[in-house]
Amino acid sequence: MRYSRETETMELKGRSIIGFQLGRETGESLRAIDPATGQSIEPAFQSATTQEVDRACSLAARAFDTYGRISGRSRAAFLRRIAANIEGLGHHIVARAALETGLPAGRIQGETARTCNQLRMFAALVEDGSWVDARIDHAKPDRQPVPAPDVRSMLKPLGPVAVFGASNFPIAFSVAGGDTASALAAGNPVVANAHYAHPGTAELVGTAVSDAARKCELPEGVFSLLFGAGPGVGTSLVEHPAIKAVAFTGSRAGGRALMSLAATRPEPVPFFAEMSSINPVFILPGALKARWKSIAAGLHGSVTLGSGQFCTKPGVVVLPAGPNGEDSTSFRDELQRLMTDTPPSLMLTPGIRDAYFRGLSSLEARANVTTMCRQSSYRSPVGLVPDAALFHTDAATFLSDPHLSAEVFGPATLLVTHSGRAQLLEIARGLEGHLTATIHGSEADLAEYADLVDILQNKVGRLVFNGFPTGVEVCHAMVHGGPFPATSDGRSTSVGTGAILRFVRPVCYQAFPDAALPDELKDSNPLGLWRLVDGLLTRKSTAS
Amino acid sequence: MRYSRETETMELKGRSIIGFQLGRETGESLRAIDPATGQSIEPAFQSATTQEVDRACSLAARAFDTYGRISGRSRAAFLRRIAANIEGLGHHIVARAALETGLPAGRIQGETARTCNQLRMFAALVEDGSWVDARIDHAKPDRQPVPAPDVRSMLKPLGPVAVFGASNFPIAFSVAGGDTASALAAGNPVVANAHYAHPGTAELVGTAVSDAARKCELPEGVFSLLFGAGPGVGTSLVEHPAIKAVAFTGSRAGGRALMSLAATRPEPVPFFAEMSSINPVFILPGALKARWKSIAAGLHGSVTLGSGQFCTKPGVVVLPAGPNGEDSTSFRDELQRLMTDTPPSLMLTPGIRDAYFRGLSSLEARANVTTMCRQSSYRSPVGLVPDAALFHTDAATFLSDPHLSAEVFGPATLLVTHSGRAQLLEIARGLEGHLTATIHGSEADLAEYADLVDILQNKVGRLVFNGFPTGVEVCHAMVHGGPFPATSDGRSTSVGTGAILRFVRPVCYQAFPDAALPDELKDSNPLGLWRLVDGLLTRKSTAS
Repeated sequence: MRYSRETETMELKGRSIIGFQLGRETGESLRAIDPATGQSIEPAFQSATTQEVDRACSLAARAFDTYGRISGRSRAAFLRRIAANIEGLGHHIVARAALETGLPAGRIQGETARTCNQLRMFAALVEDGSWVDARIDHAKPDRQPVPAPDVRSMLKPLGPVAVFGASNFPIAFSVAGGDTASALAAGNPVVANAHYAHPGTAELVGTAVSDAARKCELPEGVFSLLFGAGPGVGTSLVEHPAIKAVAFTGSRAGGRALMSLAATRPEPVPFFAEMSSINPVFILPGALKARWKSIAAGLHGSVTLGSGQFCTKPGVVVLPAGPNGEDSTSFRDELQRLMTDTPPSLMLTPGIRDAYFRGLSSLEARANVTTMCRQSSYRSPVGLVPDAALFHTDAATFLSDPHLSAEVFGPATLLVTHSGRAQLLEIARGLEGHLTATIHGSEADLAEYADLVDILQNKVGRLVFNGFPTGVEVCHAMVHGGPFPATSDGRSTSVGTGAILRFVRPVCYQAFPDAALPDELKDSNPLGLWRLVDGLLTRKSTAS
Repeated sequence: MRYSRETETMELKGRSIIGFQLGRETGESLRAIDPATGQSIEPAFQSATTQEVDRACSLAARAFDTYGRISGRSRAAFLRRIAANIEGLGHHIVARAALETGLPAGRIQGETARTCNQLRMFAALVEDGSWVDARIDHAKPDRQPVPAPDVRSMLKPLGPVAVFGASNFPIAFSVAGGDTASALAAGNPVVANAHYAHPGTAELVGTAVSDAARKCELPEGVFSLLFGAGPGVGTSLVEHPAIKAVAFTGSRAGGRALMSLAATRPEPVPFFAEMSSINPVFILPGALKARWKSIAAGLHGSVTLGSGQFCTKPGVVVLPAGPNGEDSTSFRDELQRLMTDTPPSLMLTPGIRDAYFRGLSSLEARANVTTMCRQSSYRSPVGLVPDAALFHTDAATFLSDPHLSAEVFGPATLLVTHSGRAQLLEIARGLEGHLTATIHGSEADLAEYADLVDILQNKVGRLVFNGFPTGVEVCHAMVHGGPFPATSDGRSTSVGTGAILRFVRPVCYQAFPDAALPDELKDSNPLGLWRLVDGLLTRKSTAS
């Protein structure tokens, strides 16, 4: 099969990748849909059978015996090879991903670069090795009333991880995205479940990973990629006893269903889902007065970026109705103008477009909600074209109507005007868990509203000051997570080096001879790690 | 009310502690039972009402607004004051705990010392402060294609934590045990559910904590203690929306029930249960030959310590039947002699004694299991007196009969003899998750059985070499945890400084002005923490 719309082509097989073999023709299949035309795209992708799911998971369990114990250096080489292979896909991946998702080529190129940077960041992390939190407490043979034994601990991988890719980031949160990169970095084999909306992109990336595993002479099963026409493949995957953790990015309904499944298996496993967030933005009076125009411009860019298909899109904007009423009005007028002038753009899938329109209709139907902007170009029979939309309500309505806090995935946002500090804080206190919260304020605002920061830091994973939440920096300090229901486990992040901590557990060794210890815990510190030795951080050898 | 059997007495109120007030007389109550006589002990303890559970949780939520943000130094002062108060209970707590549990006074004194050391260890940890994993990634305004923002993160407390104390450690794993100490250290208020078997001990310790909270001028609700005659109080506690995490030590049935409750709340919360473990011991041929007599003595001490009422009691001992048949026989004969000569001892509660006897009968009834030692003194009508018991089977039987892997809580163990390396490894591979595994071996054994270590490190939280698993050192490197079903979340430890990581989540601050950042993340590093600054660990200020 060859895909169209490009002069250069790359053959797609349309089969799952089970260890180092391709899945077979199974009769059940799926095809991607071109969001620009609504037409399906060749080739067909064969759904994995239950036997194939089992084989992928069993191979992963066997691979873990080896892969879970190879050096950080070897894992780093694998991750770098994956990155190089993905870069080697060049314009093929840009063309196919753009075709399947409707995202512009520039966005796909940026996402590919981000994905490769991320793989290399984890490579550097595990090559350095200090992330394993090595701890050594020496024996105290003379301690009273009983001697203390020598105890040493470090973080170890959990075992095979199932990864569910996201619809909205076909590369960076998909087959070789942050979940896969962090799971592989920690020493866990990965069985990825391709998102049905971009199976061709998934196959290209999956082939890149599989090829890297072969080239690095890693055991078969360290990576597999499964296609599924319905939810059965994903369900079998989460239920498989060889799977020891699950990572998921998607809707709240899908996340909660798999979360329950993971919690009710005979052996429950950690489940990390990033689900939904309205990413509230609080504009404080000083900032509104000083910068209403630039805040409106920045907000418009953030709300409409990528057709609003970001988990960090600002869905609610809280601002004063007065006493600076004129600033508030100017801001609202400006944002209305910008939103109205926004050209229609493609959405990822018919399902996402339909959910967006349902969300808009639901907002329109609520009492005391004003529609400030909503066109009708979506009635166009061709493609998945949505409009930007803007709504307005007052704080009292927002506080009394929980429907107004539901995520609307797409280029829409809701302005909420409040009568002053008390209402502002009431809104903040009433928030459920979200990925981010943003504050626009002057230095004086921040001093006056210090309690707003105190409240919000218990509600979200990331607080943004005088910026916008879209754009999640890949770095050590990033937290892309947040209390339920933003994620299934608010104690984790899915972006940044901290993401590796989801897939590990501490193991300790008591009174072990040096030769039988992992290198990370040997007296001579052969890997040169930072270690907590008798309570003090040091890179020194502890050999006497 | 005054309790008996001691010339000196201390008044017990028999009421829950709800913030700084006592619960009321509710009609429903419970009494402790003296295991030596089977008689109930005064006073009655009033069951908390649903309203009291709600009040304790609501006060905790309000207290969190303050307590979640006070300095590590202030939390350390609180923890040290708790330790001093517990020490101030002196012989009162020893007398009452011994009366309620049947544990000897020396054991209670040791446990009290351990508890106070543990509180002071967490005080030192949070006073030092580096445990918060502060990370700073500076802005890169010139980065292409987009500038990188300043991003800083640290660990923050989750909110009110519910703690369920253990039957078998009335002090160290109870009201002010490791769970409470680590939750409070992290900045979380605690609502403790007293174990029904030692309510007087719970009240004494609870009063010590509550008094410390007052003396340290902490907000009301930072600590509450609830009594419950049935499971209703615990259920209401886990279901309360103000509770943000739960810690539990107890049976698998109780743990699984609360685990399901925590996972199916409208807002699921992290649940940390330490449940059951058979703590397998592997005796390798070289060690058996060289040290069969001392291993038998050590094992006997570990199995019968505290009437076998330790979560780390060795419940299965795997050893060769041959080719050193004579060593195996000598070891078994010696252990049989020691177990037979063990005097009967008290168990904690009638329920635990009954479960122990059911466990023994169940083992006796299995095919191909030989009873090597089991007396009948438990038929005595007075007290909760059990016997040590020893069973033997072969590897083939053990591998084919999952009943033989069930925990028997009490002074009993099962010897499993195998025909060689292949069967040994098959047993190891077939294990479910446990807290510990122990290997007795010579250096030559360890080299020959390196794959045994590889298998076992995926099955347990702690590997012990040439020692015994009872006795869990409180230190930085300790891991008291293990894969399910040993615990509900194998990624955690309930002992050692790592226990604090259960009750925190990372929060990040993007582009915040220095003055609005927590001290832990300020440029000048005023607390002198180790921080990961642009990927490098340093204690330096980053102020330019």
